[in-house]
Amino acid sequence: MADDIFKQFKEHSVAEFFKKNRQMLGFSGKVRSMTIIVHEFMTNSLDACEEAGILPEVFVQVEELGEDHYRLTVKDNGPGIPKTHLGKALGQMLAGTKFHRYIQQRGQQGIGAAACTMFSYLTTGQPAKAISCHKGKKLTANISIDFKANKPVVQEIEEVPTEESGLTVISEYKDVRYERSNYGVYEYIRRTALANPHCSITLVEPNNEKTAFPRSVEANPPRPFEIKPHPLGIGTHDLLEFAKHNKESKRISSFLQETFARMSAGKVDELRALLPTMDLNKNPQNMTWEEAEAMVKAFGQLRWVSPAMDSLVPIGKGQVEISFRNIFNPDVLVVTERTPKVYRGGIPFMIEVGIAYGGGIAAAGKKGEVMRFANRVPLLFDSGGCAITETIKTMDWKRYDLREFEDEPVAVLVNLVSVHVPYTSAGKQAISNEEDMMDEIKFALMEASRGIQKYLSGKRRANEIATKRKVVNRYVQQLAGDLSTLSGEKKAEIEKKLLDIIEKKYGEEDEENEGGDEKKGEGPNANENSGSVKKPAEKEEEGDADE
Amino acid sequence: MADDIFKQFKEHSVAEFFKKNRQMLGFSGKVRSMTIIVHEFMTNSLDACEEAGILPEVFVQVEELGEDHYRLTVKDNGPGIPKTHLGKALGQMLAGTKFHRYIQQRGQQGIGAAACTMFSYLTTGQPAKAISCHKGKKLTANISIDFKANKPVVQEIEEVPTEESGLTVISEYKDVRYERSNYGVYEYIRRTALANPHCSITLVEPNNEKTAFPRSVEANPPRPFEIKPHPLGIGTHDLLEFAKHNKESKRISSFLQETFARMSAGKVDELRALLPTMDLNKNPQNMTWEEAEAMVKAFGQLRWVSPAMDSLVPIGKGQVEISFRNIFNPDVLVVTERTPKVYRGGIPFMIEVGIAYGGGIAAAGKKGEVMRFANRVPLLFDSGGCAITETIKTMDWKRYDLREFEDEPVAVLVNLVSVHVPYTSAGKQAISNEEDMMDEIKFALMEASRGIQKYLSGKRRANEIATKRKVVNRYVQQLAGDLSTLSGEKKAEIEKKLLDIIEKKYGEEDEENEGGDEKKGEGPNANENSGSVKKPAEKEEEGDADE
Repeated sequence: MADDIFKQFKEHSVAEFFKKNRQMLGFSGKVRSMTIIVHEFMTNSLDACEEAGILPEVFVQVEELGEDHYRLTVKDNGPGIPKTHLGKALGQMLAGTKFHRYIQQRGQQGIGAAACTMFSYLTTGQPAKAISCHKGKKLTANISIDFKANKPVVQEIEEVPTEESGLTVISEYKDVRYERSNYGVYEYIRRTALANPHCSITLVEPNNEKTAFPRSVEANPPRPFEIKPHPLGIGTHDLLEFAKHNKESKRISSFLQETFARMSAGKVDELRALLPTMDLNKNPQNMTWEEAEAMVKAFGQLRWVSPAMDSLVPIGKGQVEISFRNIFNPDVLVVTERTPKVYRGGIPFMIEVGIAYGGGIAAAGKKGEVMRFANRVPLLFDSGGCAITETIKTMDWKRYDLREFEDEPVAVLVNLVSVHVPYTSAGKQAISNEEDMMDEIKFALMEASRGIQKYLSGKRRANEIATKRKVVNRYVQQLAGDLSTLSGEKKAEIEKKLLDIIEKKYGEEDEENEGGDEKKGEGPNANENSGSVKKPAEKEEEGDADE
Repeated sequence: MADDIFKQFKEHSVAEFFKKNRQMLGFSGKVRSMTIIVHEFMTNSLDACEEAGILPEVFVQVEELGEDHYRLTVKDNGPGIPKTHLGKALGQMLAGTKFHRYIQQRGQQGIGAAACTMFSYLTTGQPAKAISCHKGKKLTANISIDFKANKPVVQEIEEVPTEESGLTVISEYKDVRYERSNYGVYEYIRRTALANPHCSITLVEPNNEKTAFPRSVEANPPRPFEIKPHPLGIGTHDLLEFAKHNKESKRISSFLQETFARMSAGKVDELRALLPTMDLNKNPQNMTWEEAEAMVKAFGQLRWVSPAMDSLVPIGKGQVEISFRNIFNPDVLVVTERTPKVYRGGIPFMIEVGIAYGGGIAAAGKKGEVMRFANRVPLLFDSGGCAITETIKTMDWKRYDLREFEDEPVAVLVNLVSVHVPYTSAGKQAISNEEDMMDEIKFALMEASRGIQKYLSGKRRANEIATKRKVVNRYVQQLAGDLSTLSGEKKAEIEKKLLDIIEKKYGEEDEENEGGDEKKGEGPNANENSGSVKKPAEKEEEGDADE
């Protein structure tokens, strides 16, 4: 009997796994599936353009072919994909240029595009049609996926010369639905445009309505640098892997400097002092687990310069302000500008937070609005399990003169920037509850909230002053008459002087009060932003637990 | 430049993917990681024992070796694993006996055990030690995992004769922590024992405290049958895959009956009538996409007997009641017994819900407690993104005379039973927001809530009656005196008679009132439970969207 069961023992490919568990890729609802597909193709297009230094221009068209049946075209002006890689890029999971690089990108897993090809094939039996214009050649091919092997199936159609460059993917889907809801493609693209002002995006909806989201900035944001891994983000196994695959260095000492960021000769000396029995002249290939473990422990005992700031490129204070004013036209708006931090010991990340209050938000009847982004990609789904939403929930908003978050005309934007975003699942819609990250989100929220609070308390104070002035003004007439009788001076002159005094007094207070809503609060850990990080104390990361 | 980037094009194994994204497996916090590891080994042990018809006996020991450094031993009395499969079972992801079978099991992905081997190796560099007693042989081997290839690395230590059977896995971990919190191993095992009264579990904690969770039922629950797929759960691609891999049947008509549940010759005739142009005598190997698509559409137009009930085995009303009384000793307790439903068209599932109110829950100061299970496995984490929690949130508890859920001394148990649980990620701690499933969870909650409501309104009525009786009693003395004066009868006798009347009247009302808290509410769709299902109307599944 027990052997019978082992006759059923089988090995499965990652494509079969995601075919059966498509909800893990985000395919779990018709409108959501439609949005996820557009999301996967658009993030690839934007990444490709920026990587190649091209100002992105993306064309998205959704055509309705029948009930819950659509054709999607996504065309970009990127560098295209060479023939040798086209199939793998679109028809093989866990293959690509992104997975292993330490660089801030939208995509990071090498699953998304192949997942769409899979979903297309599963629901319509049709391959995806790819037109890749790359280095003077225009290749047209049909691409599908062999689930059992997780390998692409490529059928070349033609290859002709071209002067253009870019990738177009045309694919069909059933079991999806186009809708202009808060979770639909339109909203996804609107938010993408918001966070990516250098992109020009055109959307043609099934009803043939064409919407242009023109760029408002005529240059790509600074290109985030690919960085070497930081010593504090490295585990024993990582270090051994690096040592094993190292080819350039014959000595551990030079290997360390080759491989890791912030590893100077001086740092190697410090390590040597901490590890007196270890021979740093030996070949890294021969490093043992014990040695690597001791080395990682020593990494943690040293002070390191924090990861390079230019590895992370946020949306930016100015742009978040413009975007917020465009959408909401709020009464007050505070955007944080914080320095990068690290999580899991040494993976750099950065949080930017914008909080807007009143004005257009109140007028539109919106309350407690949250807009989540990761590396400028809007996150529309799975807010329930996301570190951003969870952190907003744990905030004590009353400390900032706000009532319950959900009852206030307030909109919060949070953008997480990192070389590796710890998503909760392959569907990339929620961020895992990493403790360091949640702490930093909280600090950023607190910083921005203090700005809002100043505005609110300023507003309250202005109200109080206005009331006082009204009261005082009431007595001016009477007082001026009485003084005129007593002094014999003209009542009108006395009245004017009194009014001047009042005006001067309350006018000053008004001015004093004005700075309040513009001055940015200092971060609760502003003094930590010294460019030097210590390994954080070992703390329990139970933020992810529930009940 | 664009070509440079494609020089960096690489393919990755699923093991590398999960190494980098270990949070997707649930490894995202020290206490949580410890619990997840125990969870993976225990679910495998319980599945193996039950599959082999053995009453499960599981021994779990956690030993502390250093700071955040532990050794875990999990030993079961199952059938063991044959030598040929031991490495793959413990050291290769997506390999195993579970992934492709239509049967209710705890594990279903073939990732968990290998994920633990991975986590052990990543944090300590040590292989897992497996001792498999299988068919008279006791094999001891060290097992680790080659990440690049997702292949097991097996080092055999010895093979000797034995009369025992079972599997023991001893593995070491760092970056984990043992804690007796709500998210720790102890609570996980306690809840497992609750939902699996036929299991005997022993836990030895790091402080050497030994806790036995003895079995309270001396037989395994009925073995859920492995079922054939139901026609309503099949997509076009599935049908073609089945047709292509079919070897027994030379005709589509017989292939259909071989392959699918509830597919009688009569049903094939009905399909033939719906598909007059299709040749059901042709070889299934030659079925086209268009034919398969038409066939799947025809499946949806017929009425089908619902999936076999014996494919699903719930914890059971009796057992849930016993467990609830043991933990909470509540004032009132209602457990639903509902028939299986289907989701995604045809995957059978079943929801059981228990709601307990007052008594020990109030005494312990607990409020709005939720215990989630899937196939009897406790889900301790990620409640934020789980269909069960989300559904509980959307319930209008006030309709059932409860205030806010979080403010009431109420405990809710939900167990989802299915041949395929749609988890949100490979970490298997939250259930995806499948619309059919959320509807059914809601109906079950409503049904149980009505029982609670009857109790609460009964209790309120009893209070009212007690008040009335008190008021009436006050007048008895006076009235008896007055009547005695009027009638000349003895006051004591009149008083006794009046008291009898009152006693009789309010005593009866009390009895009438008693049935209320025991009578089970009928499901809102009780009339649907006819054993016959129609394909649900196409509805938008936007339950998973947010904001």
